[in-house]
Amino acid sequence: MTTARPPASPIPARITLLTDFGTADGYVGAMHGVIATLAPAAVIHDAGHDLPRGDIGAAAWALACYWDLHPEGTVHVVVVDPGVGTARRALAAEADGRRVVAPDNGCMSYVAVRARRFRVVAISNLRYMRSPVSATFHGRDVFAPAAAYLATNGALDDLGPQVSDPVFLPLSQPERTADGISGAVIHVDRFGNMTTNIPRHWLEDAANVEVDGRTIGGLRETYGLVDTGQPFALIGSAGYLEIAVRDGNAAEALGVGSGARIRIR
Amino acid sequence: MTTARPPASPIPARITLLTDFGTADGYVGAMHGVIATLAPAAVIHDAGHDLPRGDIGAAAWALACYWDLHPEGTVHVVVVDPGVGTARRALAAEADGRRVVAPDNGCMSYVAVRARRFRVVAISNLRYMRSPVSATFHGRDVFAPAAAYLATNGALDDLGPQVSDPVFLPLSQPERTADGISGAVIHVDRFGNMTTNIPRHWLEDAANVEVDGRTIGGLRETYGLVDTGQPFALIGSAGYLEIAVRDGNAAEALGVGSGARIRIR
Amino acid sequence: MTTARPPASPIPARITLLTDFGTADGYVGAMHGVIATLAPAAVIHDAGHDLPRGDIGAAAWALACYWDLHPEGTVHVVVVDPGVGTARRALAAEADGRRVVAPDNGCMSYVAVRARRFRVVAISNLRYMRSPVSATFHGRDVFAPAAAYLATNGALDDLGPQVSDPVFLPLSQPERTADGISGAVIHVDRFGNMTTNIPRHWLEDAANVEVDGRTIGGLRETYGLVDTGQPFALIGSAGYLEIAVRDGNAAEALGVGSGARIRIR
Repeated sequence: MTTARPPASPIPARITLLTDFGTADGYVGAMHGVIATLAPAAVIHDAGHDLPRGDIGAAAWALACYWDLHPEGTVHVVVVDPGVGTARRALAAEADGRRVVAPDNGCMSYVAVRARRFRVVAISNLRYMRSPVSATFHGRDVFAPAAAYLATNGALDDLGPQVSDPVFLPLSQPERTADGISGAVIHVDRFGNMTTNIPRHWLEDAANVEVDGRTIGGLRETYGLVDTGQPFALIGSAGYLEIAVRDGNAAEALGVGSGARIRIR
Repeated sequence: MTTARPPASPIPARITLLTDFGTADGYVGAMHGVIATLAPAAVIHDAGHDLPRGDIGAAAWALACYWDLHPEGTVHVVVVDPGVGTARRALAAEADGRRVVAPDNGCMSYVAVRARRFRVVAISNLRYMRSPVSATFHGRDVFAPAAAYLATNGALDDLGPQVSDPVFLPLSQPERTADGISGAVIHVDRFGNMTTNIPRHWLEDAANVEVDGRTIGGLRETYGLVDTGQPFALIGSAGYLEIAVRDGNAAEALGVGSGARIRIR
Repeated sequence: MTTARPPASPIPARITLLTDFGTADGYVGAMHGVIATLAPAAVIHDAGHDLPRGDIGAAAWALACYWDLHPEGTVHVVVVDPGVGTARRALAAEADGRRVVAPDNGCMSYVAVRARRFRVVAISNLRYMRSPVSATFHGRDVFAPAAAYLATNGALDDLGPQVSDPVFLPLSQPERTADGISGAVIHVDRFGNMTTNIPRHWLEDAANVEVDGRTIGGLRETYGLVDTGQPFALIGSAGYLEIAVRDGNAAEALGVGSGARIRIR
């Protein structure tokens, strides 16, 4: 490895990894190895490697689910990178005491819109990359070394120049309408639970929820209050309206997924 | 986070995680983050996150497979929690120097029946939970904080009152019959190997094994002694009678699964 | 545990794990537990547990992808072991400052052929195994204890006698032909990218690549230079000719897989 190392830090560094690499190849092991070499004291947390291939929206949402649950100083790595080997930039960003490295494709969208202050640079300094940089595996050659550098007290601005126009996903926003609220499903998890973009504080007790025109009924506090198999609405773990089925799969039961229209009257 | 922290411990804490969350969402990252924040020195071991959804029996068996292979002081976390958001309790238990936190649904069954002493409390002290506790993600809000507390020398009894009636799975027991032994398959693993509830010391060399009425033959010491593709019986890695197929899938070959009847004559 | 422990080392040990165990059973947790008990200070890196069942070629290739990205002193563990319980030996090897334990079935093939010096022993010393050794789970009973021993400064030769004839996979080699180069696909990853056995330095700019008789065209530097959906050839992240499809799956698009013939004219 010809990449540069910052001086060793007495504070244990912490790096999380989120990718769509799966765990049937050597890619995850390669990223671990690069980090272990450059930041030997860093603790690595595998947040998950089974994101749907190339699904930037799923990556962005997953990152937001754990972003600030980790201690300040944590460096989050997200590699869902269908544009690897194109002109897309590699980014590093800082917000609320955590940092993240990821391709410039929208992976940081939810974190960015919620952050009080969000500063982004393009990773362009070859000093902090493996050499040569491959055409196909920037997780190993660009993002892992950058994360190791940041995690060992490296400065964001050392990686490259500030960027004012990172790619953001077109996040759908809920709207207040004449007769209530209009929103959308933004994520379906493994269990078929559907998270919407309507935050807790928009909701009133009298809410009557519709999913793609089908009436689901009012907000329930928890699973225990509904019958098995019945779709219902509750506040999900991220603080947004969620559609679920007790002991079942809401997305399958309703035959809808990400993008489904939510109406509240 | 408003959860309480015990004083830092000089002894490295150790926490294992076993869930059915999959690794395509942010849930695993969230649990890691809560633990990293509350117990920064704790080592986290991911035992697995791909348990079949809601399969409490699989969770209970998996936990028993590694429970006491980990050093004393380890805190095991199991979150297979189809009853989240219902009246089911959250439990913490202690046995043989290890501890476990899990929903009160039977996840601890195999560990409990084998333990010399098994002490259980209900996790009810809000001081050791995240606030507010969501309706859907107690892994993050209840079990991870409780594990962090225990792993940093917290006392079991601080979490809540003792419980005398934790839920146990109806574990099928082998029986001695007039002409031999009657038992059942209790777990089928990824490879199709079928573990039964008949322990090693019940078995004699002359055993002749039947699976759902089909004769499998006598006990073999190991794979190397049978032909490829042939179902046979041996002592599995957990010390119980196991049905396997060399270079094959026994459950598929025999067309049976968990619950299949075993007879030994 | 009755296995022997070497004296504690001040240098943090590092162990990677690669298996086909999946993460729906207790097997990964068991290996972690054995290592945590015998080498409490060792850092464990899960390289992956979802290798295709029994696919030794995939294991050998994955290992080679991260082998020397990890720091010197790292102990790699590979358990893809269809021959467990047969007469196949258990091996430990040393090359270029790293060590590996694995069944004697070819898992080390790519690492061995590339190593400057490759020394192998058979793991036969019962002192460094769990007792009794099960017939079915040498990952827990043989390989994890051996790795823990090596990671805590144990000597390779303590494990058993040197071996001169480890099993090697029949690795296909590229050949120079009258009109160019003949090679083969040796690995297909999760994304459908096909790695070949033709190294970077054999390739000339004028190369015209054929896959199973179908012309793919010349070498491109990166994804950004081709159209979406079009198969093309580039240098992959391991330094070998690779066939890929931008935003697509090359193996599916071409209907070929491992073993496909590559011709370059």
